Amino acid sequence: MITKNQIKYINSLQQKKFRSEYQSFIVEGAKSVLELLKSSFEVELLFVTDSFFDEFQHEFQHLPLKIEIVEPSDLEKAGTFSSNNAALAVAKTKLNQPLLIDDHEFALILDDIRDPGNLGTIIRLADWYGIKKIICSPTTVDLYNPKVISATMGSFTRVDMYYTDIEVFIGQQNANFYGTLLDGDNIHQTKFSSSGYIVIGNEANGISPSVEKLITHKITIPRFGGAESLNAGIATAIVLDNLRR
Amino acid sequence: MITKNQIKYINSLQQKKFRSEYQSFIVEGAKSVLELLKSSFEVELLFVTDSFFDEFQHEFQHLPLKIEIVEPSDLEKAGTFSSNNAALAVAKTKLNQPLLIDDHEFALILDDIRDPGNLGTIIRLADWYGIKKIICSPTTVDLYNPKVISATMGSFTRVDMYYTDIEVFIGQQNANFYGTLLDGDNIHQTKFSSSGYIVIGNEANGISPSVEKLITHKITIPRFGGAESLNAGIATAIVLDNLRR
Repeated sequence: MITKNQIKYINSLQQKKFRSEYQSFIVEGAKSVLELLKSSFEVELLFVTDSFFDEFQHEFQHLPLKIEIVEPSDLEKAGTFSSNNAALAVAKTKLNQPLLIDDHEFALILDDIRDPGNLGTIIRLADWYGIKKIICSPTTVDLYNPKVISATMGSFTRVDMYYTDIEVFIGQQNANFYGTLLDGDNIHQTKFSSSGYIVIGNEANGISPSVEKLITHKITIPRFGGAESLNAGIATAIVLDNLRR
Repeated sequence: MITKNQIKYINSLQQKKFRSEYQSFIVEGAKSVLELLKSSFEVELLFVTDSFFDEFQHEFQHLPLKIEIVEPSDLEKAGTFSSNNAALAVAKTKLNQPLLIDDHEFALILDDIRDPGNLGTIIRLADWYGIKKIICSPTTVDLYNPKVISATMGSFTRVDMYYTDIEVFIGQQNANFYGTLLDGDNIHQTKFSSSGYIVIGNEANGISPSVEKLITHKITIPRFGGAESLNAGIATAIVLDNLRR
């Protein structure tokens, strides 16, 4: 079982201030927990149901970890899922360490992505398209928010994140900075360089004016119909697909 | 003000059975209501706040429509938005009429899209990429679900939808049917025909086996990293962007 104090502790990790204080975060659901256990993250607590244990014990029984078998209702009390007949883990957050690209690498820069579902989708997309680094403005939603972790479908284990002042970050690099703007080059004709950064703007306001000034390559997703805009996750998908052609 | 009976009526339209019975649906928020008023949908009721009326009255004062000015709290009681300082309308649903493509046209076929947010995103994407027709399996979430309408950001006014047995529908046409499957041709190399249908599968299970048999062109979105899958909205975006190059 999960003790009352553990439930209180795990519940507290839904809030950023407690995640910062304890340097820990929650991972829920079969797919995410299995990916966590295969990753370099340090796991602090692991609760699983009977059926999850039976099906997947070969994936974690070799780990130096105390595994508690609990009821689904315990997982639901401790975590954020309304139903969870699988697993819940608490893992240690990683240090916020600077990231730079190599000579033949692309990374994402997120300018104020506020919605946890969008950030999770962007991390999953980065992982699909082989992007390993994401630089985020301090106003971007916290990677360790349980909704972000859940929306990444395990991809948070394969993509490194660095929160920093992105204006300062961009100003310090001599690199290609691509950004989707209204008056850019048609992305279907864009010849991407061999390395650089792709800047994704805020859901409502796009790329902020001070960051826009630093964009070296303005690109635009062509529109063929009546919709006024695309959401941030969709725009990221289309830019990355064009980058990888 | 909105009368108690009107609130009861509008609330009931959150349920599919009452939308079918009354042949009416709810449209909420500034963007969606403004798009509705410009469209061919018949508007039955229109409630707006003072500030919305002042800002946008030129867009609807010529319409043969009784406009009620109400408080935001009235809109919130009647509709599904937790905050709405703009507008709420009730409009008449359209008949479910057969759709076919022209000689130089593409349409979407949705095989069991369950999530309202995903359907809304797909309609918005169709609208962005100039797709005017979507054929849906009967198991696909109802277009007139308030969450779908809201997620389309007004694009529901520009895309026609037809719910039907998609196996029968596909079987009756001599056309190109593209579907994203694991073992298809790399979409980056696909030469699309001048007309056809793109089949989008269910969020968890993809395209159903009985529909898969009818696909004439299997296509695959290439993967460059570790993520196992992409969600249905993202996959639709990437296919449509490749189609329109």
